[in-house]
Amino acid sequence: MEVLSRANELQKSGLDVIHLEVGEPDFPTPAPIVAAAHVALQQGFTKYTAAQGIEPLRMAIAQHYLDRYEIEVDHRRIFVTAGGSGALLLATALTLNPGEAMMMTDPGYPCNRHFMTSFNGEAQLVPVGPADHYQLSPKLVEQNWQENTAGVLLASPANPTGAIIEPEALAEIAAIVRHKDGFLLVDEIYHGLQYGAASVTSALEFDAIVVNSFSKYFGMTGWRLGWLVVPESAIESVEKLAQNLFICPTSISQQAALAAFEPESREIMERQRSAFEARRNLMVEGLRKLGFGVPETPGGAFYVYAKLPDAISLDSEAFCMQLLEGYGVAATPGTDFGFFEADRHVRFSYANNVQALEKALARIEQSLL
Amino acid sequence: MEVLSRANELQKSGLDVIHLEVGEPDFPTPAPIVAAAHVALQQGFTKYTAAQGIEPLRMAIAQHYLDRYEIEVDHRRIFVTAGGSGALLLATALTLNPGEAMMMTDPGYPCNRHFMTSFNGEAQLVPVGPADHYQLSPKLVEQNWQENTAGVLLASPANPTGAIIEPEALAEIAAIVRHKDGFLLVDEIYHGLQYGAASVTSALEFDAIVVNSFSKYFGMTGWRLGWLVVPESAIESVEKLAQNLFICPTSISQQAALAAFEPESREIMERQRSAFEARRNLMVEGLRKLGFGVPETPGGAFYVYAKLPDAISLDSEAFCMQLLEGYGVAATPGTDFGFFEADRHVRFSYANNVQALEKALARIEQSLL
Repeated sequence: MEVLSRANELQKSGLDVIHLEVGEPDFPTPAPIVAAAHVALQQGFTKYTAAQGIEPLRMAIAQHYLDRYEIEVDHRRIFVTAGGSGALLLATALTLNPGEAMMMTDPGYPCNRHFMTSFNGEAQLVPVGPADHYQLSPKLVEQNWQENTAGVLLASPANPTGAIIEPEALAEIAAIVRHKDGFLLVDEIYHGLQYGAASVTSALEFDAIVVNSFSKYFGMTGWRLGWLVVPESAIESVEKLAQNLFICPTSISQQAALAAFEPESREIMERQRSAFEARRNLMVEGLRKLGFGVPETPGGAFYVYAKLPDAISLDSEAFCMQLLEGYGVAATPGTDFGFFEADRHVRFSYANNVQALEKALARIEQSLL
Repeated sequence: MEVLSRANELQKSGLDVIHLEVGEPDFPTPAPIVAAAHVALQQGFTKYTAAQGIEPLRMAIAQHYLDRYEIEVDHRRIFVTAGGSGALLLATALTLNPGEAMMMTDPGYPCNRHFMTSFNGEAQLVPVGPADHYQLSPKLVEQNWQENTAGVLLASPANPTGAIIEPEALAEIAAIVRHKDGFLLVDEIYHGLQYGAASVTSALEFDAIVVNSFSKYFGMTGWRLGWLVVPESAIESVEKLAQNLFICPTSISQQAALAAFEPESREIMERQRSAFEARRNLMVEGLRKLGFGVPETPGGAFYVYAKLPDAISLDSEAFCMQLLEGYGVAATPGTDFGFFEADRHVRFSYANNVQALEKALARIEQSLL
């Protein structure tokens, strides 16, 4: 966050900053979604909705699971929320009691830790590296399960590593968690943004509680819309929580999101996905050439979590500050995502165009000289 | 909530239901706000914003305090949130530790209790009636303060009673709370909707943490936008909380809300306020004539919290169900708002047009025969 505000300061003062610190797609929201929002406004769709979200959208999401994953989900299990954040908040309130811990990777999305502490629980951070494919493995889950562990939070594709969990590992972890009578929460916020041959399964297949979002693949960050899928047995509790904590998600965003499942939107999003894939390849190759450690090609999201070249003696925060102040490239130090080798890692977002990425790589090269 | 879903069921099956159970204005969002949303969409204002909300909106809110209350508030103390709910959630997370209690009135807005329990604290309900003007008094606050009381939550105008707290009482309560080193939270969600000569002060004058909303006076329920004003010393903590729990409020709603402070919007809202005042008078007189107990004319919001006529032996839930099933009038039993004499009270919302209210009064009369 410090990098972000300093980057904005420098930009205001006239410096040409290339933003590789951002966590949102650079593409605009697909036009059919925006058009649907105009219609919603014209029709006065500006009142409270059901706390769970409007039924047509929940049914469209259920259909999406059927179309893309061949998974049948009763739409009554789907809660539309204010972004993936709203879904995570409900999931945390549902699963965590004071003093309990949720197991998660280090590095990981930093807000997850804060959700746990806000609800008087804690995050139980398990260091993961290339040997673990930057994900929790069944073995790690077994080894690290503690007295106060309430469950496991996975993210796939993950932020900041872009790592995708293998379906087999996911199935095994689900079985372990079930055996321990814990909760399995899976953050699938970057679903849709995976590249190459990766066959991606939704953890719904393994009865997980799933958090998703319209922000990333669907390009709707500012609209604040996401969803949560809960087991049938939790519907009533989550409905009460949603009613009490949120009343409902934004009506206009909900109506607009219906258009996100239309073929024209899908076409735009798939085109963007291809663009992200090309950028990923560019960034991974470019960083490797410069001596950064990217032992695994990230399978999804729009981040490269790269180890600083050995020749760099600066820690990641100092490196990022130097890169920003001296060369106008904003990137995020690993310390924003955890503790494990965090001072040797930097997250580069490739939610920026190819020209900018090439220019950024050239500037990074300069900074290493 | 049971009444609401049964009312919708009956309506779907063809029954003509008059809705006096609703918690949102029947008026559409003022046209200038809707127009501003169209512009925001056209300009692609669909990205994440600062967690605290966009600066122009925070400055407009600060100006609003200056214009309407002659109170100077630094806009850095203002957080734009996802509805009043988002503001209450942040306020709760900020002030309440596990095991602590927040003092509040019974009857009161039911979600408030749930915010406290979601964060592993509790609501400390203090029964209030006509003798207390349905508000906590300095005496009640003194008498009821306990070891684990973290602070006091007031609401003015209050839901379900419409009661407005006197500035003198507010000042005294603020002094007591300060003396006890507690928090004073004031829900001003219905501000703007007060009637008659009532001079309304914002609790900001007394250094309270203030929750407000664009939902009621500004007619923006489905847009999910509200705000929170915190002391200077809490800005940093609340900013972290907002970043972690919400990322940001809806961008389009924020941009649209700027138009809420334009004179044309103000004119529309003031016209609606007058309409609400006429309806209040109609409902209060009508209900009194029918034998309902409304000892104090509610000063604000759009609710009448009425005591059942003595001749009615049904409790409030049975009465509401009979009124709905037999006469097509939906109202909310007091039990939705607390425990104190709750089975003898009903909340009638007058967020409905005069014709509907007159028809409803006639039907209620019928039900009493």
